[in-house]
Amino acid sequence: MIGRLNHIAIAVPDLEAAARRYAGPLGAEISAPQALPEHGVTVVFVTLPNTKVELMQPLGEGSPVSAFLEKNPSGGMHHACYEVEDIIAARDRLVAEGARVLGGGEPKTGAHGKPVLFLHPKDFDGCLIELEQV
Amino acid sequence: MIGRLNHIAIAVPDLEAAARRYAGPLGAEISAPQALPEHGVTVVFVTLPNTKVELMQPLGEGSPVSAFLEKNPSGGMHHACYEVEDIIAARDRLVAEGARVLGGGEPKTGAHGKPVLFLHPKDFDGCLIELEQV
Repeated sequence: MIGRLNHIAIAVPDLEAAARRYAGPLGAEISAPQALPEHGVTVVFVTLPNTKVELMQPLGEGSPVSAFLEKNPSGGMHHACYEVEDIIAARDRLVAEGARVLGGGEPKTGAHGKPVLFLHPKDFDGCLIELEQV
Repeated sequence: MIGRLNHIAIAVPDLEAAARRYAGPLGAEISAPQALPEHGVTVVFVTLPNTKVELMQPLGEGSPVSAFLEKNPSGGMHHACYEVEDIIAARDRLVAEGARVLGGGEPKTGAHGKPVLFLHPKDFDGCLIELEQV
């Protein structure tokens, strides 16, 4: 069911400094910062040949990344996003198998303008999983 | 400099249960478990179209994953591995830019039989980065 790894997301306390590390010592191609106020984050995309890394810094009050950074002040790997063809079918299969979908279970529009869902980390070895319909 | 995301690694307390979740509800292709005693882990590879996920469970005494699981008993995302063409050149560039290489700075033979290095998570936003020469 799950397809490509669309991206991994890393929560960072200082987006400019993080972006410099990926562009400089690691020599990767990075995007300009993009504010996504409806998602409570500012992001920089690190483009790799086969996938991408999203560096995310909280934006505004109540950012979903703020609590993570309180627990992990240096930052850390926040979630992994896998692509699915049909997010409703994916959700129904997961729920039937006992997995919990965060936030009521209805897909929302993700940072890339596509339907997304998040799965409860406790059901997947402490790993927050995002599913994105592509 | 960094190329493909070779894999992400997830530390799990129960490898069989974790593998079942990726094969079942998530519907991914998984490998048989492989014991890697020289690396202190047993792994299951989740094959995705563009990269892979390594589920890792501690094997034996002094596994490098044991301390992580003590801090994160449910498991969690452990590291991200990026491919490089020349691991010595990569190391020298990183060290010149002030990044710290774990374990003395000499490449070791990784789980795939290729030279690898790990970078200090404090230098990369709390994210443990593995570099693998391909």
